[in-house]
Amino acid sequence: MDNFTFYAPTLYEFGRGSEEKTGMLAFLTGSRRVMIVYGQKYVKTNGLLDRLRMSLDAIGIEVVELGGVQPNPVDSLVYKGIELGRNRNIDGLLAVGGGSVIDTAKAIAMGIPYKGDFWDFFAGKALPKEALPVGVVLTVPGAGSEGSGSTVITREETHQKLSVRTDSLLRPRFAVLDPELTFTLTAWQTSCGIVDMMSHILERYFTSTRGVEVTDRLAEGLLMSLIDLAPKVLADPTDYNARANVEWASTLAHNGLMGCGRKEDWSSHAMEHELSALYGVTHGAGLAVVIPAWMAFMAHHKPSKVAQLGRRVFGVEATDDRSAAIEAVAQMRAFFSAVLRMPLTMKALGVDEPDIDELVSRLHAHKGDELGSYYRLTPADTRQIYELMLDESQRASLAEKEAVSGQMSA
Amino acid sequence: MDNFTFYAPTLYEFGRGSEEKTGMLAFLTGSRRVMIVYGQKYVKTNGLLDRLRMSLDAIGIEVVELGGVQPNPVDSLVYKGIELGRNRNIDGLLAVGGGSVIDTAKAIAMGIPYKGDFWDFFAGKALPKEALPVGVVLTVPGAGSEGSGSTVITREETHQKLSVRTDSLLRPRFAVLDPELTFTLTAWQTSCGIVDMMSHILERYFTSTRGVEVTDRLAEGLLMSLIDLAPKVLADPTDYNARANVEWASTLAHNGLMGCGRKEDWSSHAMEHELSALYGVTHGAGLAVVIPAWMAFMAHHKPSKVAQLGRRVFGVEATDDRSAAIEAVAQMRAFFSAVLRMPLTMKALGVDEPDIDELVSRLHAHKGDELGSYYRLTPADTRQIYELMLDESQRASLAEKEAVSGQMSA
Repeated sequence: MDNFTFYAPTLYEFGRGSEEKTGMLAFLTGSRRVMIVYGQKYVKTNGLLDRLRMSLDAIGIEVVELGGVQPNPVDSLVYKGIELGRNRNIDGLLAVGGGSVIDTAKAIAMGIPYKGDFWDFFAGKALPKEALPVGVVLTVPGAGSEGSGSTVITREETHQKLSVRTDSLLRPRFAVLDPELTFTLTAWQTSCGIVDMMSHILERYFTSTRGVEVTDRLAEGLLMSLIDLAPKVLADPTDYNARANVEWASTLAHNGLMGCGRKEDWSSHAMEHELSALYGVTHGAGLAVVIPAWMAFMAHHKPSKVAQLGRRVFGVEATDDRSAAIEAVAQMRAFFSAVLRMPLTMKALGVDEPDIDELVSRLHAHKGDELGSYYRLTPADTRQIYELMLDESQRASLAEKEAVSGQMSA
Repeated sequence: MDNFTFYAPTLYEFGRGSEEKTGMLAFLTGSRRVMIVYGQKYVKTNGLLDRLRMSLDAIGIEVVELGGVQPNPVDSLVYKGIELGRNRNIDGLLAVGGGSVIDTAKAIAMGIPYKGDFWDFFAGKALPKEALPVGVVLTVPGAGSEGSGSTVITREETHQKLSVRTDSLLRPRFAVLDPELTFTLTAWQTSCGIVDMMSHILERYFTSTRGVEVTDRLAEGLLMSLIDLAPKVLADPTDYNARANVEWASTLAHNGLMGCGRKEDWSSHAMEHELSALYGVTHGAGLAVVIPAWMAFMAHHKPSKVAQLGRRVFGVEATDDRSAAIEAVAQMRAFFSAVLRMPLTMKALGVDEPDIDELVSRLHAHKGDELGSYYRLTPADTRQIYELMLDESQRASLAEKEAVSGQMSA
């Protein structure tokens, strides 16, 4: 077990009607003039935004609005938010939505007090020293940004999808989690969220650190509960307890608890970020394609932890690690496909002609020659993993191209 | 799942050598003149206290010392600490020890700024409105007070063992957790600590709240890891990873995470507190006697959750709940006895002639006519549970007394 610091001071207000406390929570965390950041018009038309404005007004907090956040949130709206926030002299942000909205709010929160270009933080050119307080009213569980100190933003011009993490500045001061606000999510949104939660657990579960029994068991418990809950919440989107448990799992998957004392991996996320940036695929759906491919590669190169996952979470009985790992991959694919109705190949993801050269080259340009910590992946490895995401027709076409290129170079 | 607020802002500094950061952490949380509270002379003779003083001195923090905390900490030392702290004008406390030391420091922290008698808070006559900041350097994992908002103090004159809980005031600002500081704990101390941790999980696990799948799975994961780790840490007290995992489990068992969204029970603790208060038994050892008796009672009155524990944690295969619950009790007793070498009866606990009338009467005087929430226990129920803690000879003697009393009243 590695040394660690764990500091997670977000206040979670969880349950039916908890959004009524938003004004009080924003006030108690020091905000008097708040920018509400949101995405779809939906939160306006369903009355949520009005209810929140009333809660803020009642305690004397002024409100500025910034709508229009899209999935895979982009830098242009962050620039717009920074300008608006400075002009209106805001002293706090309230993100109303899911990960994209929260990440946009966090980037604006760092950008407003910073004299330079906020992208400096994402490009690694500067470290944030201050940020306005961010509060959250969560409507789309999955990204876990409501309890994390991270934000991920895409630079439109260059298709770069990069992240900043600083627990002391970017963890939300409070997060309002009302499961009823998630009743109207579609099956697709729900499933993408569940894959994202599972990925946050798995990126920490797959570690080279030994002696991390407690966190392993917690991670396995969260995964088992999500596997049990998924069919319930998909069968009845208004099942309060199922929605509530999924939402709380989402937060715990990514608030740092699952990573205590261990090196984290994050290579699946890095590989998926390139897919999102190049082809605009939904993050959760992209992860459903990447994770089993990554696990299948590991079944042959370092099966131990994949085998443990198989045995403890999926009840796999094989005694040798490689067989248990291969069976774990099959079970994970079956769950993603049969229960969550997620794509399992690039083709099913809508990427008909993936440019694997470009994906590998961008990935290692962003992440260096090797990535991951459970197993260090070289460009040859990541190429192989991307190839494991192709369907049969794509593989045949790739083989044909390689044969041609082999003939040409021969 | 019930509505809840979860706010756990304690900063955990975990790992080898983490106590070197104590001065910095105390300084950052606002302390300039600190009272170090400790128990045994051991922390003085092994050099820990000197190292902590150096760390505090180096950053300009003045130090006052208060030693002599005993297990089942008492009010007299709290009064002494309040007086000393006021005279020396301290502005923070540093608890160096286990639960008794931390609980004493918390009581002093509430008492110093309060104009009345600090016992008012425990007697329910007043609510604490402020408290000095408390930091912790943990040397005995188990009680979980390093991450909780509770304190338990015994009033010597009346043998009352009562608690106060206020998350906003009493959660430590920081907790330094260095597993190497626990290497010298005896097998008895280690085992008592593990029972205490398991009890903190079980008091929350046994709930009447439905739809709490995520927290159930987390609780089961923590219990499984403790059951795996216990033989390792007892076989090799200097096994760093085993000690580290046990210590982190101790904190997570009691920082509130396991209770999110559910009614908690706490009747086993209430029953044990009477044993400690009347007979001075060690809390963890007392719990090893109380918990299986409580579970055995539930196997016959409300077996469902005991059965789930048996199936998921101990691998019990019985399909009907009562059989599964009875088997779970047997497995729990076997673990406490064969692995942890804990007593399982009042007799083995050193209470040769328990006064069950007195225990039941004091219990319900403190807790009201009914206690617990998984199953509401009447005085007739708690009497039955206390009787389940008797060994055969004690049971025979009890039966004899009852026969005599029956004859006399006839």
